[in-house]
Amino acid sequence: MEYDYLIDNGLLITMEKGLPIIEEGSVLVKDGVIEACGQTNEFVGVNAKNHIIADKKIIMPGLINCHTHLPMSMFRGLADDLPLDVWLNEHIFPAEAEQVNPESVKKWSRHSCQEMLLSGTTTCCDGYFHEDNVARAIIESGIRAVTGQGVIDFPAPGVPDPKKNIQTAIEFVKHYKDEFPLLSPSIFCHSPYTCSKETLKAAKKAAIDLDVLFQVHVAETQNEVKMIQKLGNMSIVEYLESLEILDEKTLMVHSVWIDDKDISIIQKCGASVAHCPESNMKLASGVAPIPKLIGKNIPVGLGTDGCASNNDHDLFAEMDTVAKLHKVALLDPCVMDARTTLKMATIQGAKAIGLDKVTGSIEKGKRADIILVDIQKPHMVPMYDPYSSLVYSAKSSDVNWVMVDGRILVQDQRIL
Amino acid sequence: MEYDYLIDNGLLITMEKGLPIIEEGSVLVKDGVIEACGQTNEFVGVNAKNHIIADKKIIMPGLINCHTHLPMSMFRGLADDLPLDVWLNEHIFPAEAEQVNPESVKKWSRHSCQEMLLSGTTTCCDGYFHEDNVARAIIESGIRAVTGQGVIDFPAPGVPDPKKNIQTAIEFVKHYKDEFPLLSPSIFCHSPYTCSKETLKAAKKAAIDLDVLFQVHVAETQNEVKMIQKLGNMSIVEYLESLEILDEKTLMVHSVWIDDKDISIIQKCGASVAHCPESNMKLASGVAPIPKLIGKNIPVGLGTDGCASNNDHDLFAEMDTVAKLHKVALLDPCVMDARTTLKMATIQGAKAIGLDKVTGSIEKGKRADIILVDIQKPHMVPMYDPYSSLVYSAKSSDVNWVMVDGRILVQDQRIL
Repeated sequence: MEYDYLIDNGLLITMEKGLPIIEEGSVLVKDGVIEACGQTNEFVGVNAKNHIIADKKIIMPGLINCHTHLPMSMFRGLADDLPLDVWLNEHIFPAEAEQVNPESVKKWSRHSCQEMLLSGTTTCCDGYFHEDNVARAIIESGIRAVTGQGVIDFPAPGVPDPKKNIQTAIEFVKHYKDEFPLLSPSIFCHSPYTCSKETLKAAKKAAIDLDVLFQVHVAETQNEVKMIQKLGNMSIVEYLESLEILDEKTLMVHSVWIDDKDISIIQKCGASVAHCPESNMKLASGVAPIPKLIGKNIPVGLGTDGCASNNDHDLFAEMDTVAKLHKVALLDPCVMDARTTLKMATIQGAKAIGLDKVTGSIEKGKRADIILVDIQKPHMVPMYDPYSSLVYSAKSSDVNWVMVDGRILVQDQRIL
Repeated sequence: MEYDYLIDNGLLITMEKGLPIIEEGSVLVKDGVIEACGQTNEFVGVNAKNHIIADKKIIMPGLINCHTHLPMSMFRGLADDLPLDVWLNEHIFPAEAEQVNPESVKKWSRHSCQEMLLSGTTTCCDGYFHEDNVARAIIESGIRAVTGQGVIDFPAPGVPDPKKNIQTAIEFVKHYKDEFPLLSPSIFCHSPYTCSKETLKAAKKAAIDLDVLFQVHVAETQNEVKMIQKLGNMSIVEYLESLEILDEKTLMVHSVWIDDKDISIIQKCGASVAHCPESNMKLASGVAPIPKLIGKNIPVGLGTDGCASNNDHDLFAEMDTVAKLHKVALLDPCVMDARTTLKMATIQGAKAIGLDKVTGSIEKGKRADIILVDIQKPHMVPMYDPYSSLVYSAKSSDVNWVMVDGRILVQDQRIL
């Protein structure tokens, strides 16, 4: 039997159960699938068309970015350090009205895909408007993605009449479903404060009927909590539960202002959370209770959010930040240890967006989403514990080589 | 007149008063001194031995790392995610006892200097033991530095008898003072909880007599505050003031657990602060009231701390973190804006360690500590505001070229 790739002799971090480390490890790939992984000496004499030497590098699964608005890289650094309402109403909304169109959406989505691939991200979960143009950029780039056409009760780019918001989102899903193996369409309902009860219910019903992920921003700011409380003295999570929005296929983005009761509801319903620490910090939204969510075995993935509020797609930086943020917020240096953090950016992120059977770890049978990380630069030396090195010392610029679904997309830090 | 270098046609961020930006800017260097800077078209026909084209790059002052323990890169990632006492007593102290010697100190200081130079840092302020070996590594590397031999009331590497701690520190200063233009010796007194009243006073007296900077860790943890309170129901800052430790040549490192009264004392005395946000986060020490300190015009610089508690020397990452940390801690997106943050990492840092006449900005008459930052990679595009791009998007790997005191030390991301 001839394989496509033998990735050989690297420090193999599989992120599979038990988090084993193989010091001299190899991975075999054929037809986009991981056929085997293990000790390098087990693969002597194996026949592969391409031999990738991973000497002095970590072999690990590609990172999963659980929350993006890819086209928003066009607004990177447009307006920073401002109060949230000034930022949104005076800068971002007017800029969106003026600059967001099918061409710009495609152009900047392509740009964001390049940025993500160069920094070791092999899967993202996106939601925006003109999402068909996002999808086209994603397909061209070769990255894996979940994508959702935005549903919001206001005139939006590409959907001037909000009455058509759900139908547009449904058509998007129908168009892309099962058509492109790397692209999983979904429904992206903006939030409980920008969508009515009826919109939320109808959008979730569509997601259930179509059997796709339902993404929704939840409890990002204190203001939002107050707005929803006015509707019936409920927390946002209780409100969403009452609308039957929360289940195993719901991704709750942000979830900053939630309490223990809310966490129990999320756990009971089986919903997942996308945590965007840098965005929450930069917009001064707050610190989500992530260690508590993880303690309840709720799948939590890591997201960068859009580039208007971060301002990049760098999950290595995000890992470093998330591990440190929760320590200082809880005055406990033991929370968010390096292993938990790296799981959040890989296998738990994959689980949060419903792709853990496909990606998020290096295991026989999974698709080959693999990156190589250089460990020779001064900031990576010495290395006592590869998990610690990856979370606290590695930079996205250490990512040297990226494979998605068995295709090499980055080599020597360059997009192919 | 023939100059040594004309650095030409870059986006010039001088960090001088008023923070002017020159879109097509140039800098002239002779004998290690900045002779002129301004619009590129003003320099047509100027005669320079070396012409550095800074096209598609930012020209800016090198960054100032206000708190390091350079040899501690040998412990990078040795022990993470642990309670402070376990980390110190079971890991760091035993490792120091076993591994810290003149050779290892020199080796890992050299390693840290390389890491700093590659990431755009041109000045650091260091304190450790065997500091003469740190100093030798620094001099060989060509970086600018303030260095202090550690004073502590316990047996320490190289100073087994604590009775000799101050004399050793004084000898260090005398040996290096005015000998090496890039190296400013200082006294590094560990902390009020590891040094007696007598040691603190004697060490500060030595610093005054020798006219050098006095570095001291202050109020890093809540525990430390409680320990000092037992001495006389005073805050740490009040205690240090009562010992006449605080003046314009005192650098208070950390200053996390201080209140408004303490801040008034610091302001009155004219002391400076070194803020180490990532170290304070990772060790779960707390969030220092930096926006308040800056509001009182107290010079605050940025530091990485040692690599056992960060785990790198990356001031670009530190800038991104510090700008976001204080926003979320105060739930105010306007604090620590990009300009304030970049000042902290350059001119204010230089001021905090007493080198603002020498470095920290690109101005006629200052020493030529200059870096070039690539602005072409996807994460730096688009660029609406260079300050925002440098703080929120740039990575240390974008640093392409580094000059210290008129000598090129990094070219094309490699140490020369």
